[in-house]
Amino acid sequence: MARSSSENNPTGSGSRPRKLPRYELLDEEALQQLEAHAEWILREIGIEFRDDPEALQLFKEAGATVEGTRVRFDNGQADHLCRTAPKSFLMTGRDPSSNVTLGDGHTVFMPAYGPPFVSDLDRGRRYATIEDFRNFVKLTYVSPWLNHGGGTLCEPVDLPVNKRHLDMVYAHLRHSTKPFMGAVTAPERAEDSIAMARLVFGENALEQTCVIQGNINVNSPLVYDGVMTGALKAYARANQSVVVSPFILGGAMGPVTQPALLAQSHAEAMAGIALSQLVRKGAPVVYGSFLTTMDLKSGAPTFGTPEANLSTLAIAQLCRRLDLPLRCGGALTASKVVDGQAMQESAAGMLSGLLAGSNFIFHAAGWLEGGLTMSYEKFAADLDHCGMMWRLLGSLEIDDESLAAEAYQEAGPGGLYLGTAHTYRHFATANYASVLADTRSFEQWQEAGRQDLERRANTRWKEMLAAYEAPPLDPAIDEALQDFMARKKAETPDQRY
Amino acid sequence: MARSSSENNPTGSGSRPRKLPRYELLDEEALQQLEAHAEWILREIGIEFRDDPEALQLFKEAGATVEGTRVRFDNGQADHLCRTAPKSFLMTGRDPSSNVTLGDGHTVFMPAYGPPFVSDLDRGRRYATIEDFRNFVKLTYVSPWLNHGGGTLCEPVDLPVNKRHLDMVYAHLRHSTKPFMGAVTAPERAEDSIAMARLVFGENALEQTCVIQGNINVNSPLVYDGVMTGALKAYARANQSVVVSPFILGGAMGPVTQPALLAQSHAEAMAGIALSQLVRKGAPVVYGSFLTTMDLKSGAPTFGTPEANLSTLAIAQLCRRLDLPLRCGGALTASKVVDGQAMQESAAGMLSGLLAGSNFIFHAAGWLEGGLTMSYEKFAADLDHCGMMWRLLGSLEIDDESLAAEAYQEAGPGGLYLGTAHTYRHFATANYASVLADTRSFEQWQEAGRQDLERRANTRWKEMLAAYEAPPLDPAIDEALQDFMARKKAETPDQRY
Repeated sequence: MARSSSENNPTGSGSRPRKLPRYELLDEEALQQLEAHAEWILREIGIEFRDDPEALQLFKEAGATVEGTRVRFDNGQADHLCRTAPKSFLMTGRDPSSNVTLGDGHTVFMPAYGPPFVSDLDRGRRYATIEDFRNFVKLTYVSPWLNHGGGTLCEPVDLPVNKRHLDMVYAHLRHSTKPFMGAVTAPERAEDSIAMARLVFGENALEQTCVIQGNINVNSPLVYDGVMTGALKAYARANQSVVVSPFILGGAMGPVTQPALLAQSHAEAMAGIALSQLVRKGAPVVYGSFLTTMDLKSGAPTFGTPEANLSTLAIAQLCRRLDLPLRCGGALTASKVVDGQAMQESAAGMLSGLLAGSNFIFHAAGWLEGGLTMSYEKFAADLDHCGMMWRLLGSLEIDDESLAAEAYQEAGPGGLYLGTAHTYRHFATANYASVLADTRSFEQWQEAGRQDLERRANTRWKEMLAAYEAPPLDPAIDEALQDFMARKKAETPDQRY
Repeated sequence: MARSSSENNPTGSGSRPRKLPRYELLDEEALQQLEAHAEWILREIGIEFRDDPEALQLFKEAGATVEGTRVRFDNGQADHLCRTAPKSFLMTGRDPSSNVTLGDGHTVFMPAYGPPFVSDLDRGRRYATIEDFRNFVKLTYVSPWLNHGGGTLCEPVDLPVNKRHLDMVYAHLRHSTKPFMGAVTAPERAEDSIAMARLVFGENALEQTCVIQGNINVNSPLVYDGVMTGALKAYARANQSVVVSPFILGGAMGPVTQPALLAQSHAEAMAGIALSQLVRKGAPVVYGSFLTTMDLKSGAPTFGTPEANLSTLAIAQLCRRLDLPLRCGGALTASKVVDGQAMQESAAGMLSGLLAGSNFIFHAAGWLEGGLTMSYEKFAADLDHCGMMWRLLGSLEIDDESLAAEAYQEAGPGGLYLGTAHTYRHFATANYASVLADTRSFEQWQEAGRQDLERRANTRWKEMLAAYEAPPLDPAIDEALQDFMARKKAETPDQRY
């Protein structure tokens, strides 16, 4: 299991274009209504860019109306500024088989991002550590179904707040070869992340290709703060990619009706992408979205809900009209355990993202408890579902061989098709072979200990971790990374919050 | 909770047209390839109609080629014979609010059909009894999300094989008002079912409207036996509906590649529907399908898999070209418990059916263990998911109110939208309110006993059953039903198998 092999990964290493058609939820009239409303928001309400005079200056120079920290755009202005971003781009991994294309009909799956807790059946729920972080880098590396290494796989709260990004970026670079995300929690941490990437990929490589990304969460509703735009500018200046992700919980950071949120999310994304292009025309970006709902009795966030999934389908259509790589969907859930709720909500979130035509699915594995917890068992269970999703993306291939005329001639009505030559040729590859679905009889399952999916997933992630083999890294590069980290850590005192 | 109310059932009683667009998986060329292959199967391989000389005679008179029990159709012949069936039809329930339309963009959800076992967390897995059967009639009746009462909700194995259909049909008629299915296990049991329906709806009512259905499972591959065609003919003669459902486990009852199964299923369905129209032109039918996969290592059936879901999407397109009401999809799973596997597979099976444009979803609640078990907890968990699916079918409504311009003017960037007038107007109805999803904090959930979905569902079905109130039934009709049953039971000795 050392690395994704073409044998057990039908999509091959990296990424390739989907065959599954995209689902079109809204018609032209509805899309125009949403676009017009996004333009109205940008024109009449505007977007706040706080604590970032440089951003305000850039917008002013580009012709936007700036009053205080409020930036307003004329009709079509933000849309126009977004159009210099590439329709698709390559992310280069540390070996060529890890390269992925973002956009252009390709699909990229990334593990969960951001949880401060981890959990497993043996030790329960607890604060995450750098050891957990490394474990999830390794688990992501060995999985054939995740083709992006992710970013903050969990928050290593045992390390100082102002230095943990160094260890996280190092873990990605040392223990994996897959494309990854750097820090966004302060502009200088983004710069550190980029500097470490340069040590590995070469001083000038970043001018030519994207090797690191920053996930820019908008401070929805309609606000960007200086921390986020600082990180955005750092990545864009270095010609590296940002994912601009409005995060909107309907009813809290926006109205409770989904059409409003769609227009708002579209407006927020365009404003951030516009800024990236003002910093550096042509810098690669991903149009992100994270639209979800809340329990309107308690105010608690909810995930994988029908309203959120409808919005996922719709936001994808808005993005396509901008012709940008799209982030939406994910294996999201509010559940605290890997139970029926967790997997039902996650399956719905993943399916809507895939049908929407998502190019980049964050949180494709491990997310639990509204993103507060990275679960080892959920990770393994989600991976199996990711395998199913890859199969789905392959759609149906209809040709003489798959129509199997000879099998009917051989077995006829009432015959047994298991023994036909056609079945022999195809049985090993016809269906995705789930590693976790239990298909045994009740009696067999009972005798084997009545294990549910969560329990089986517990066995699975341990097997995966045990099978991990580190990819090679030039010792000179490793030393340079270590030196960089040591120097940075020595420069400033530890901060614990 | 006495009956579906418009308050908690956004689709209202009965059924109404979907707003969610259908997903088109295959292009015109692919569909033509599948149709041509189905025609090839009908022409070159043919379909066996066993133990039914009348069926063979009807096909011969219609111009098909009959050799022994093999029936072969010229190109377009079976398709042509199907075209006299109605594009859609009404099923009349025992009160007008229970009426449903099959076809015409409407959606009908029906509980699981056929399991010999039942299970719940208190008593475990056991053979089903008539008491269980009645419980599921009642649970189905009180649910606003199931608009069809179903048929063999579970197999009451405590009753004689040759008489249990009487008690089952009686339970549907006495304890519910929703449309239902009668017996198909022998032609005379189908006749008994229809006779009991006549006692309730009136002697001549059945000539005018459909009040009872028979589910005709094809003896795939490419065979109909006399029991199934006997039941099919009984329902069709009475102007009642049959659902013609090829049941194909790829690799066993057909080749292992999905395109072949699609053509086969299409051919099998057309042949059965053609027979119904030869028995009575214009008799209402549903084009059914049950395409699934198997674990190609063990031969065990698998459900909710990506291959099966792709086929669900494709078979729907083939059905639409015949312009008939469509049955596909369902909350299927091979799992033995209501765990992550169960709900993930079920969610995928339901979503693919809905996106496909299914008019009629069998097994929308309760199905466990490959259909061997009707689970009380799975039933409650699936119902909640059905509620989500109804919300999904409502799609997004984009208008000035849902775009919420006033909320942005009121709260602006960085504002709190929870307190806006717009949120107050919409918070109670904006989102589907799940009754089983846990959205609490980890601490709240832990203090409340760490219940997973299965455990919460255990509480839920008991609440539902306790809230059941029997619908009225004219005592004279009830007496007539009882007399009929008593007479039928006295006519023949009990059969235990």
